[in-house]
Amino acid sequence: MEKYVIGVDIGGTNTDIGIVSDAGKCLARCRISTQAFIDAELYADSLAENINALIAERQPCVVSGVGIGAPNAHFYSGTIDNAPNLPFKGKIYLKKMLEERLGLPVVLTNDANAAAYGELVYGGGRGMSDFIMLTLGTGVGSGIVSGGKVVYGHDGFAGELGHVITFPGGRLCSCGRRGCLEEYASVRGIIQNFWELAEKNGFKSPLLEVKKSEVDCIMIGNAAEAGDALAKATVEYTGSVLGLALANVVAITSPKAIFIMGGPSKLSELLPAIRKSMEDNLLSSYKGKVEVRFSELDGNDVAILGAAAMVLAENV
Amino acid sequence: MEKYVIGVDIGGTNTDIGIVSDAGKCLARCRISTQAFIDAELYADSLAENINALIAERQPCVVSGVGIGAPNAHFYSGTIDNAPNLPFKGKIYLKKMLEERLGLPVVLTNDANAAAYGELVYGGGRGMSDFIMLTLGTGVGSGIVSGGKVVYGHDGFAGELGHVITFPGGRLCSCGRRGCLEEYASVRGIIQNFWELAEKNGFKSPLLEVKKSEVDCIMIGNAAEAGDALAKATVEYTGSVLGLALANVVAITSPKAIFIMGGPSKLSELLPAIRKSMEDNLLSSYKGKVEVRFSELDGNDVAILGAAAMVLAENV
Repeated sequence: MEKYVIGVDIGGTNTDIGIVSDAGKCLARCRISTQAFIDAELYADSLAENINALIAERQPCVVSGVGIGAPNAHFYSGTIDNAPNLPFKGKIYLKKMLEERLGLPVVLTNDANAAAYGELVYGGGRGMSDFIMLTLGTGVGSGIVSGGKVVYGHDGFAGELGHVITFPGGRLCSCGRRGCLEEYASVRGIIQNFWELAEKNGFKSPLLEVKKSEVDCIMIGNAAEAGDALAKATVEYTGSVLGLALANVVAITSPKAIFIMGGPSKLSELLPAIRKSMEDNLLSSYKGKVEVRFSELDGNDVAILGAAAMVLAENV
Repeated sequence: MEKYVIGVDIGGTNTDIGIVSDAGKCLARCRISTQAFIDAELYADSLAENINALIAERQPCVVSGVGIGAPNAHFYSGTIDNAPNLPFKGKIYLKKMLEERLGLPVVLTNDANAAAYGELVYGGGRGMSDFIMLTLGTGVGSGIVSGGKVVYGHDGFAGELGHVITFPGGRLCSCGRRGCLEEYASVRGIIQNFWELAEKNGFKSPLLEVKKSEVDCIMIGNAAEAGDALAKATVEYTGSVLGLALANVVAITSPKAIFIMGGPSKLSELLPAIRKSMEDNLLSSYKGKVEVRFSELDGNDVAILGAAAMVLAENV
């Protein structure tokens, strides 16, 4: 009989649900609105109904469990805690709510850890016991794999690489502290890099003619690809900060590889800039040993695959 | 029949060997000179002979293995690699050499990891799955326990907290890079903190009458305890740097506790200064959750106990 796992990706707007084969292929998917639900019980009803419908289409089959990636999701407690971008307030016991409805084991983790599971089970991390998954986007997230296991720490909150203070006394972060990596390597951080470089170095660039609020990462990436000096300097600087932060985390967990995903990761020449800066900043015993690569899972199904992979990696 | 493990602490001058009970008590010990041996084979002969003598005294008994803590020791390969402070040059296959001589399993790790094993098996880390061991001395070493296991990384070199770049562009480190924690929190780092503060802040202190090359950490600690403002500021500054570096590593592995050992860890009021700075620098989700404590194993047998504990923790 065929064996499947269910992967669920909960976002602020929509929730995507997929049924995933042993080989890591998302065979069918469906979507419900997250924001349509204020009541978490009704949301869980709809989620369970849609999961059961996906399973029903594949019968006869064995489904070993449901993996969920969600903002502010907590692996140990199986809850979503005060997620600012979700409509449900407070602590939502989603693992318990779904296990009661489905009669299947359910596991939850945050998006960056889900991505790490995806890489570990289906992607470039297969057969690797130690690597880091870095997700660049609105924030900077990370999932750390050590000895073949995703690192959760004593309370489930490990892996906040975006909030490592890279420059003490540096830019004010949304977390209230100063100098966090996220303020230099998230979308807003990269845009700030752009404007600071424009001001300091007197670059000329067509992008400086654009309304300030309209310059985004995609424009910077395109301009860099077209050879714009300011945009290229922005990518270079972003890479240099990421490389420094990664060199520091290498000294902690000594990974074989660092996988990078998310929109800004594709900025023209960002990857070589990260590699160069990381090598420059690595302690000699790590030099030349750590690969920096794109995630092999980047694509439409990545969030579903990551969530599904967790079911397999954690032997749920 | 009684069960024992052997713990070996290899230092540049001497090698200490102990036989350790299940309860973590070092029942007997002996010492051989390390520096008397240039030939690693002869050194291994002497080591094996002394281990066998310790075991012979306890017969009948079962000895499950030999754990060795040594500078530049490599867990995966069982070798000591180009240790600058040991008389044997190159790569020494000590695990293999001793296993052949003893017919017992042998494991090797570096001193800081051995300390982490000691804390995990016999000390304050018992029952804790996630903690960090920080050793302050000539250098700054660390052993990281995650999910109940000492973190080695893909190549065995994880846990170099002393070489995390805490202040980019900061003091030149002995490793050739700039701003490493070790340059601010090792013995030489603390002494440099003292002289920099003396120069910058115009402190008056009897210590400034002492010959510059003679001021050491013990004098600074005693002066701080006696209320000397410059010495107190030195301890405070050292604590603030350690607290910042620890707050960053908490964001990576989220430990329940950080244990501190080694001479400088005992500087008057250093521990409270570390705690305060760490709390000030922690991301809010970690605040108030991480203990900073003295190692429970600090003492004469600590290095032997740590090495012995490794045999048990790794199920050798």
